[in-house]
Amino acid sequence: MPHSNQDVSPSRSHRLEALLNARSVAVIGASADPAKISGRPIAYMRARGYTGAIYPVNPGREEVQGLRCHPSIAAIGQPVDLAIIGTAAAHVEGAIREGIAAGVKAFVVFSSGFAELDEAGCALQGRLTDLARAHDVAIVGPNCLGIANCRSGLLATFTTALESHELQPGGFSFVSQSGALGAYWMDIVLRSGVGFSQWVTTGNECDVDAAEAIDFLVDDPDTQVIGLYIEDIRRIDAFRAALDRAARAGKPVIAIKAGSSSAGAAAAASHTGALAGNDALYEACLQQHGALRVRSLTEMMDAARLLLHGAAPAGPRLAVMTVSGGAGVLIADASEPLGLELPALKPEVAQALVPVLPSFVHPSNPLDITGNVLQDTPMIGRGMQALATDTETHAIVLFIGMMHSIADAFVQALSQARSHVHCPIIVVWVGAMDSSIHALEAAGIPVFLDIPQAMQAMARCLQMQRTRAQIVQRPKTQAATPVADNGQSLPTLSEWDGKQLLTRQHSVQIPTGWLLKAGAALPADLPYPVVAKLQSDQLLHKSDAGGVVLRIQDDPSLQAAMERLQKVGTGLGIPVQGILVEQMLPFDHELLLGLRRDPRFGPVLTLARGGIEAELDPDVVNLLLPANADDIAQMLSHLRCFKLLQGFRGKPGADISAVARRIADLAEWFLQQPLRELEINPLVIQGNQVWALDALITPLATD
Amino acid sequence: MPHSNQDVSPSRSHRLEALLNARSVAVIGASADPAKISGRPIAYMRARGYTGAIYPVNPGREEVQGLRCHPSIAAIGQPVDLAIIGTAAAHVEGAIREGIAAGVKAFVVFSSGFAELDEAGCALQGRLTDLARAHDVAIVGPNCLGIANCRSGLLATFTTALESHELQPGGFSFVSQSGALGAYWMDIVLRSGVGFSQWVTTGNECDVDAAEAIDFLVDDPDTQVIGLYIEDIRRIDAFRAALDRAARAGKPVIAIKAGSSSAGAAAAASHTGALAGNDALYEACLQQHGALRVRSLTEMMDAARLLLHGAAPAGPRLAVMTVSGGAGVLIADASEPLGLELPALKPEVAQALVPVLPSFVHPSNPLDITGNVLQDTPMIGRGMQALATDTETHAIVLFIGMMHSIADAFVQALSQARSHVHCPIIVVWVGAMDSSIHALEAAGIPVFLDIPQAMQAMARCLQMQRTRAQIVQRPKTQAATPVADNGQSLPTLSEWDGKQLLTRQHSVQIPTGWLLKAGAALPADLPYPVVAKLQSDQLLHKSDAGGVVLRIQDDPSLQAAMERLQKVGTGLGIPVQGILVEQMLPFDHELLLGLRRDPRFGPVLTLARGGIEAELDPDVVNLLLPANADDIAQMLSHLRCFKLLQGFRGKPGADISAVARRIADLAEWFLQQPLRELEINPLVIQGNQVWALDALITPLATD
Repeated sequence: MPHSNQDVSPSRSHRLEALLNARSVAVIGASADPAKISGRPIAYMRARGYTGAIYPVNPGREEVQGLRCHPSIAAIGQPVDLAIIGTAAAHVEGAIREGIAAGVKAFVVFSSGFAELDEAGCALQGRLTDLARAHDVAIVGPNCLGIANCRSGLLATFTTALESHELQPGGFSFVSQSGALGAYWMDIVLRSGVGFSQWVTTGNECDVDAAEAIDFLVDDPDTQVIGLYIEDIRRIDAFRAALDRAARAGKPVIAIKAGSSSAGAAAAASHTGALAGNDALYEACLQQHGALRVRSLTEMMDAARLLLHGAAPAGPRLAVMTVSGGAGVLIADASEPLGLELPALKPEVAQALVPVLPSFVHPSNPLDITGNVLQDTPMIGRGMQALATDTETHAIVLFIGMMHSIADAFVQALSQARSHVHCPIIVVWVGAMDSSIHALEAAGIPVFLDIPQAMQAMARCLQMQRTRAQIVQRPKTQAATPVADNGQSLPTLSEWDGKQLLTRQHSVQIPTGWLLKAGAALPADLPYPVVAKLQSDQLLHKSDAGGVVLRIQDDPSLQAAMERLQKVGTGLGIPVQGILVEQMLPFDHELLLGLRRDPRFGPVLTLARGGIEAELDPDVVNLLLPANADDIAQMLSHLRCFKLLQGFRGKPGADISAVARRIADLAEWFLQQPLRELEINPLVIQGNQVWALDALITPLATD
Repeated sequence: MPHSNQDVSPSRSHRLEALLNARSVAVIGASADPAKISGRPIAYMRARGYTGAIYPVNPGREEVQGLRCHPSIAAIGQPVDLAIIGTAAAHVEGAIREGIAAGVKAFVVFSSGFAELDEAGCALQGRLTDLARAHDVAIVGPNCLGIANCRSGLLATFTTALESHELQPGGFSFVSQSGALGAYWMDIVLRSGVGFSQWVTTGNECDVDAAEAIDFLVDDPDTQVIGLYIEDIRRIDAFRAALDRAARAGKPVIAIKAGSSSAGAAAAASHTGALAGNDALYEACLQQHGALRVRSLTEMMDAARLLLHGAAPAGPRLAVMTVSGGAGVLIADASEPLGLELPALKPEVAQALVPVLPSFVHPSNPLDITGNVLQDTPMIGRGMQALATDTETHAIVLFIGMMHSIADAFVQALSQARSHVHCPIIVVWVGAMDSSIHALEAAGIPVFLDIPQAMQAMARCLQMQRTRAQIVQRPKTQAATPVADNGQSLPTLSEWDGKQLLTRQHSVQIPTGWLLKAGAALPADLPYPVVAKLQSDQLLHKSDAGGVVLRIQDDPSLQAAMERLQKVGTGLGIPVQGILVEQMLPFDHELLLGLRRDPRFGPVLTLARGGIEAELDPDVVNLLLPANADDIAQMLSHLRCFKLLQGFRGKPGADISAVARRIADLAEWFLQQPLRELEINPLVIQGNQVWALDALITPLATD
């Protein structure tokens, strides 16, 4: 696990210390029944040897599950870090007030009946938020499944996932906005033996939210990999900062973001009372801050196991060894579309393989060592060492099928090989026994049960690490405070007015143009060919209405075109500001550029391929601002049409870094302007020059 | 499992009866050691109660594994259907000759050292082929892992997959060109309890090949679903016919085709001595004959379990029930990009749900019945019946997480519901216990362990069934015998000569054109605008060389253009046939059309989007010929640019069925012509009219 802590800013989540590393826990309304919601945490913590103090609180009882029970939190008479509350919603506020009075620093509220229910519940929840703010205590929930710290045995949760598993400390931690998904995750990590460090379900997030929990985990020394299940993030800036800290601390973040579909977005809205976010912007946000987005817990575990074992390849070059030729073919098939490579063996590697393999095995990549391995298992270790003489190999992938009779010998050979080769070893073992999987993973060798899962996990981790490497190398974006979004907009400006505004910046050029009236004298020496465009703040989509005449070659044609356009305006019954006559410029490339202030995500840059192609099959990337030229250059490289921008089939390429710099400057300018939205379509490019051929600007209303 | 046997042509594989339903087996070189290659089949068949007779043959022994051993096959003195041969390669031919002399009808040859090894092995293998042909016996292998019939216990194989599993009859059968993949498949179907009917590994295919095995399985009454692992198919026509019979018999075929990558293709070439095929044409072949292509055994099993349980949805409309809101969102997310739908509940369904659900559950799709199901498990059954009142629902998907304490009640409720609802029930159960999975699958309810796998399997089966429905409805293509490919080609013709040839057919039109010499008098009343193109059989890519002048408006411009083109020809030093002057036609759509004779697949039609877009990200479909207009219309619908052809953003659509008919006629014409290749690029379309604006034709050499 590569760490680069030098550049990690200090945590802002010290207050979660009392929550997740609590040394003493009170359980309000403690139940004697270990199956009840307020009995389970006590039962779990006692059975798993919680290292702190447990104080049941229940005025009706002397003793709960063998522990002395206190009539009130005040009566405990000892410091209490954390109180667990599972009472009816109406009693939660009172319980928190009593806890605060008694010096409790953190609360976990299981109770439902808050914002997820109705307006009254929303108001009740607001009072919890106020309490947390006023007294600087941490409140998790309400309507959550609680938290767990695997090392201390702090199990402030009633999840049934703990019923059938012992605790297993590990480097994986999880933050979930869904209790159920949190429970499934815990079941999987405990059942599989991967184990975990910290586990936080945030429920309605009246106070502690996913962003703060992530931020805390960045500083948790036992957390190596952070898993997320999110539906909606309210504090996007804090979330982005937490993801950045995780990237700079070398802690991978693997996220499931629910609600990508239209139906999913609707379901999310009705789920935890959270508004559905805009999926494309979440995608942009996760991508740009180096988090890996996956679709399921299975995909999350696949990637996590690679990362936890330090077995994610640092690059695409794989050496593949199989016990079956067919499997080698399938591995090559799965690798190619994922950008993983099976380079030909270097001559010295092929030579090194000859003495360690049976004579009939041809040294190649993939390398089929055949079923003969049944007679000579140590061949695997020798073969791996020979393959690893190529120090440019990023991982060795071994495929095995069944072969249970020699499973132990396999495990031994592989475990030894692991300490002798410079790169990770990843095993795909069809029909592997659980005992073999556990033994190999204990030796730092992740095991997958089929080929596509393994290759996909490798490719995903590699892609994430590439993005992260760029994030870590890059200086943090230093942006002046942008103009605030007051939520109000003015009507959209005409192209002419918008372009007049755009002349105040100098990163994107505006073609030379004249606003003329039909019948007016033309300026001398117009730079033909020109385009003539009807201008009206009530005609924003001019082409569709016949408001544009292209490729005009001389004065008479222009006069005729202007008269025609004037008639179009009259026909539409709209106020005509004039005809914009502009020089037509040669260009090589064409994009759509959007800058807008999103109510949830704030200022966002959108770049897309324009024209009919784009509508047929949209090719678009989003970037949350602020962003610098490097961010934008990287973003451009994610467009499918990037190959065109680089120059293709004889068409000259754009100067990508110069174009990115100009777009970054324009974005920076936008941040300082009172604008809701600026759309340039098309934005045309030639070499390092960028022009706005059309522009639609919507200002913010001044207060 | 829908069957439509009425249209299934008779099998051509009766000779495999003696192989796969053998009633007596001789094992040549039988070993007393049940771990040896020639000892295992005997041990396996005895332990699993093979219903036929087993005759060990070994001159050196009186008795083998408790059975009387015969000195020779002739000495058995009883009819022998099948002989198993695992001796050294050099003795195989002799053993087969002895078997034939003794009346044996089928042989399984494990032995290696044939075509996969060297040229001598290749010759040896050729003699086995000759023997099979001459004596009409079936030979499987050599270099194979054998065959198995699960119901009779005929285990003519030495696979280790049988070491640790009992036989389990089932409706799944498998044909594999790789022994290893065959073994993994058997391990998976026996371990998971899915079971199987027939299992055939074809090895080097000296005689029995995958195509014949598939054909036999279409008639095997116990086979419901056919799995394939293929690397290369030599008898493409027989393979296509077998796939067609399977489609018409209502037996799904799920295929892994290895070698899609360049590295994979190379590895396949070195694997079983088979030449790597052209992956795109395999893709086309599988698709067009209604087989489902998957990438891995895991994906194959996912689809097979749906199909074997009759649980593949017949359409895209899903009703989803979950015990967690988050899971419902994830199911909706996974469905949308796969074309699966979660339609809003019909009012009457919502109304039917109200009385059966807790008051706080809002009837919607996905339907979150919440963790309350722990208190009221029968709610599941009631909810399903209410959902199933919508007879347009194609499947009900239930999501469960853990809940082991009520697993048995779940299984009971679901098993009952299965018999009361009209559509399949599919369960996604995170953390399911094996016992629950087995019980549900026994009740015809497939269980998946995570969401994406389930949704993907449903979407894949649905897509396959749609293609199959079209195949079954369609009359079989009746084509006259095409001109034979003699393997020899003549040089490619100039555009002019090619178009002269094309005038012999009338489905695709040729623009009016004149072949002129520079300086010659122009025909009167040329239909301007015209295009002028330099003609030479040594200049096939005219545009790149400056050999084309577009949009010529009048005689003087044409004269000038022709002189310029003549100079280009002189400059290139090539023989100039003349200048082709052609009317420029207006058109709406542009494609590339290719017709060629592939050495492996025979005549193939290729349709692709033309121009720079196509090169950036190829948009291409292939179709093996013969094909009719329906096939071609369906093929066009698989192009990503099909939306353009249908009419998009104000551009008129093409008359797809008329265009498909014209292309079908052209393809039919091509089949009858002695041509290697015909490429029309661009083929332009307006309404129901189709023109060849350019054409490159390569004739076959006449013998």
